[in-house]
Amino acid sequence: MSRYVGVAGASQPEPPLLDQAELLGRRLAEAGAIVVCGGGPGVMEAVCRGAQSAGGTTVGLLPGLDRAEGNPYLTISVPTGLGQGRNLLLVRSSDAVVAVGGGFGTLSEIALALRTGTPVIGLATWSLQLGSHQVDAFPVAETPSAAAQLALEAAGAHGIGFRHRPRGG
Amino acid sequence: MSRYVGVAGASQPEPPLLDQAELLGRRLAEAGAIVVCGGGPGVMEAVCRGAQSAGGTTVGLLPGLDRAEGNPYLTISVPTGLGQGRNLLLVRSSDAVVAVGGGFGTLSEIALALRTGTPVIGLATWSLQLGSHQVDAFPVAETPSAAAQLALEAAGAHGIGFRHRPRGG
Amino acid sequence: MSRYVGVAGASQPEPPLLDQAELLGRRLAEAGAIVVCGGGPGVMEAVCRGAQSAGGTTVGLLPGLDRAEGNPYLTISVPTGLGQGRNLLLVRSSDAVVAVGGGFGTLSEIALALRTGTPVIGLATWSLQLGSHQVDAFPVAETPSAAAQLALEAAGAHGIGFRHRPRGG
Amino acid sequence: MSRYVGVAGASQPEPPLLDQAELLGRRLAEAGAIVVCGGGPGVMEAVCRGAQSAGGTTVGLLPGLDRAEGNPYLTISVPTGLGQGRNLLLVRSSDAVVAVGGGFGTLSEIALALRTGTPVIGLATWSLQLGSHQVDAFPVAETPSAAAQLALEAAGAHGIGFRHRPRGG
Repeated sequence: MSRYVGVAGASQPEPPLLDQAELLGRRLAEAGAIVVCGGGPGVMEAVCRGAQSAGGTTVGLLPGLDRAEGNPYLTISVPTGLGQGRNLLLVRSSDAVVAVGGGFGTLSEIALALRTGTPVIGLATWSLQLGSHQVDAFPVAETPSAAAQLALEAAGAHGIGFRHRPRGG
Repeated sequence: MSRYVGVAGASQPEPPLLDQAELLGRRLAEAGAIVVCGGGPGVMEAVCRGAQSAGGTTVGLLPGLDRAEGNPYLTISVPTGLGQGRNLLLVRSSDAVVAVGGGFGTLSEIALALRTGTPVIGLATWSLQLGSHQVDAFPVAETPSAAAQLALEAAGAHGIGFRHRPRGG
Repeated sequence: MSRYVGVAGASQPEPPLLDQAELLGRRLAEAGAIVVCGGGPGVMEAVCRGAQSAGGTTVGLLPGLDRAEGNPYLTISVPTGLGQGRNLLLVRSSDAVVAVGGGFGTLSEIALALRTGTPVIGLATWSLQLGSHQVDAFPVAETPSAAAQLALEAAGAHGIGFRHRPRGG
Repeated sequence: MSRYVGVAGASQPEPPLLDQAELLGRRLAEAGAIVVCGGGPGVMEAVCRGAQSAGGTTVGLLPGLDRAEGNPYLTISVPTGLGQGRNLLLVRSSDAVVAVGGGFGTLSEIALALRTGTPVIGLATWSLQLGSHQVDAFPVAETPSAAAQLALEAAGAHGIGFRHRPRGG
């Protein structure tokens, strides 16, 4: 069965993230993973372009009802009409999620993945503090290749021990 | 029209949060606000107990399909069957959200509110960093009474200027 | 625990249905039931007006994101942003559903209730045929009072034998 | 851009429907359409088997959270965790829907498609009456090949005139 790796990232990221997202998509596709994302522009488009450049398959879970809003690098588009509700669908349909950059939608996907026990890998993304304590809730990769590697391992191991324990509420 | 204030918080919080949540619920109800929450135990139950002690109205958006899983202090229960998808419903049905404590579900509600432009007030909850920068994305209250006050102001002003600008992705 | 009765009906029904819906709402409220509906105009508004005229509580599950789109007779409004996805929420949050009139949204609520085992009562609504066979999938009431009576009985018995068996697919 | 054709049908249909569904899937794939379904057994599995036998692409929108519950003929599986809420996703992600057989879930997909203006083609499925009037709300095909043909035409024309007008409520 194929591994599905979700990539969360903003539609208007800082430009350096686009190259990183494209390389991430390529690495995931080279390893045979299906890439799931929100189907939009920015990080989402870059990761799909990278995946398709390596012959990979991409799935876009669009927030709206119009398929034409998907980026041009989607193998499959799903207009959900759920708005940010598609963020939870992304988490549910991924065996692991890579969070790229600093959007609030991306933060919601990190949180929903942590809440539901889906492995998360960070790449130039949020870190969390509670009071004065740093909370290292998920592994952070320094490069797109490392992020892909960690995500693929987590996706392969999904359900057999890697998963973080959900944390109530 | 009534103001709806959502309260996000964990089912198994650290015990001191329960007293804070109860006082928060009381203050919100005293001001005539309808309290919306996830309808479960822990912070959710405490805030409902507080609201009902002041004669207030409480709404619980349950993750499952069984109304009996709601806490005993709900005026209205809505079994959504959406799992953590009810977190987005909570945000959408609230004019402002108070985030209490450190659960990952609570973090998802903070993120979804920030993403969709619903005002958020923090109370003993997460803070966010991007790289080495602290990101002060929402006001933080020191006490339940202050959190209620800030949330009520934000809920009243909702749509007329208070809203944070959504941040892509 | 209160009984929740959902009422499904169109925003632009044939006018005689409005009086029937209003009487239905009144009867449900007189019996102490909470009325759940889509929160809009037409049948939804009429049933809420009837329920509030008897001192009842009404809940509107709005398709959009704007609370102001709810009708004026809602005790509680929940802007879901789910579009027709709120139809399933209506079914899930009701112990029994009364289907009034001939909209396609109403038909979807009949079907989702039958699929998920929630009791349905018909009032001047669709009937179903498969091939040349009439399928009597739910009881039909001749009057609003009779519909209320059947729905209240079904809601009270919900889970203890009344439920139709779900039918696959 | 590819055409997406949804196929609604039960997990436990009458056996003759399975052959019809398989042929329907084959015809859709031969025409280059992507087949979207609920991803389960019965009609859903048969249509996917048919589509894959012609080299086609299939997408399964699963009701639960476990990808392993999908049938073996899915190119892409999306575990939605939405229960019957995936029925609306199927409608939203399809340019036209073929309804096969007599399940209540299938009826909900017919109704949601009619409500939201997505073309529906019937194949051995429900017909509708309002009072004593037959309501011919969608075209009915006599054979799987004819259903495929009608659906492909409707999917191609989607948005340029074919769509039924939505009917309130």
